[in-house]
Amino acid sequence: MSKAAARLRAVAVECFAAKGYGATSTRDIAARLALSPGAVYPHYKTKESLLFAISFEGHTSALAAVQQADRLADGPTDRLTSTMAAYVKWHADNRDLARVVQYELRSLSPEHFETITVLRRSTSHVFKRIIDDGNTSGEFDIIDVEAAMVAIPALAVDVSRWFPSQAFSDADVLAQRYVELALRMVGSRSP
Amino acid sequence: MSKAAARLRAVAVECFAAKGYGATSTRDIAARLALSPGAVYPHYKTKESLLFAISFEGHTSALAAVQQADRLADGPTDRLTSTMAAYVKWHADNRDLARVVQYELRSLSPEHFETITVLRRSTSHVFKRIIDDGNTSGEFDIIDVEAAMVAIPALAVDVSRWFPSQAFSDADVLAQRYVELALRMVGSRSP
Repeated sequence: MSKAAARLRAVAVECFAAKGYGATSTRDIAARLALSPGAVYPHYKTKESLLFAISFEGHTSALAAVQQADRLADGPTDRLTSTMAAYVKWHADNRDLARVVQYELRSLSPEHFETITVLRRSTSHVFKRIIDDGNTSGEFDIIDVEAAMVAIPALAVDVSRWFPSQAFSDADVLAQRYVELALRMVGSRSP
Repeated sequence: MSKAAARLRAVAVECFAAKGYGATSTRDIAARLALSPGAVYPHYKTKESLLFAISFEGHTSALAAVQQADRLADGPTDRLTSTMAAYVKWHADNRDLARVVQYELRSLSPEHFETITVLRRSTSHVFKRIIDDGNTSGEFDIIDVEAAMVAIPALAVDVSRWFPSQAFSDADVLAQRYVELALRMVGSRSP
């Protein structure tokens, strides 16, 4: 992708995060870069295609962060520790992007939504695999696998809604606390 | 408030939840009720005042649900059980309303935002009091009070982002599972 397209996406993320996708026009985005209203068109034919490009980039980046953190040679507790920390930090460090890609999904076309769903499922699958492994090996004492699979990543996603706050402004500190909570949720027996 | 105003708010919640606040006009809302574009004005002078009325009603209702569930004569474990269940169910049962009041806060005027913040703090305070009580009495074994105070209500708020899903379509079942996770997060020693 061109530098011009990357700049458009970056400004679009700021606008969508601040005002919402629906309240932002491609004209607003062009104006922020001192471009003519038609300057977005060669790169993104529609506002929705811009949202899709942002969503694809964002969810791919979040998935990569989680996959890289999941070192398969480690035990389930270490793997949940590193993946949860990575996912929380991704949502704190990329708050605007995270907000757009997690909360503006309804504005994607059905085909684009489907593509993004595949990426989101892959991210969930990383957590599912760790939770299943911990459950099978007995290292975790899980009450309900489905609930843990939903709640643990959800806690990280929610960070983009409010981070930073008075209590938490350091992403590393927050990640450490949320890891502790995630390990409790799965009943990790590892010290 | 009049029946006409209540109908406007109900339709506005549907529109804001489906398309987002920014992408909805008061004209859209009037059209859904087969009213003239000017019909909203006698009730709500601006779209923002409509959002504020909805936010005030929604956050007041969520706060009431949590306060009513917090029976002060009970122990901290029972109180966290009933308040978390009530908060999860509120977000599942009022999903569209919850989505609007939790995710469209940025569109409120600064004064209205301040008013809503007071209500939101009161809700957080219910959880804070229970967590503090459980910590003080030793019934809870909390690692970090601030983290628990953020994470537990956040898990309930997040429900409005995705409920229902393939795994969870019954609000009571979800509430029960999330209560179990919340009790683990605080390290409840009660059986």
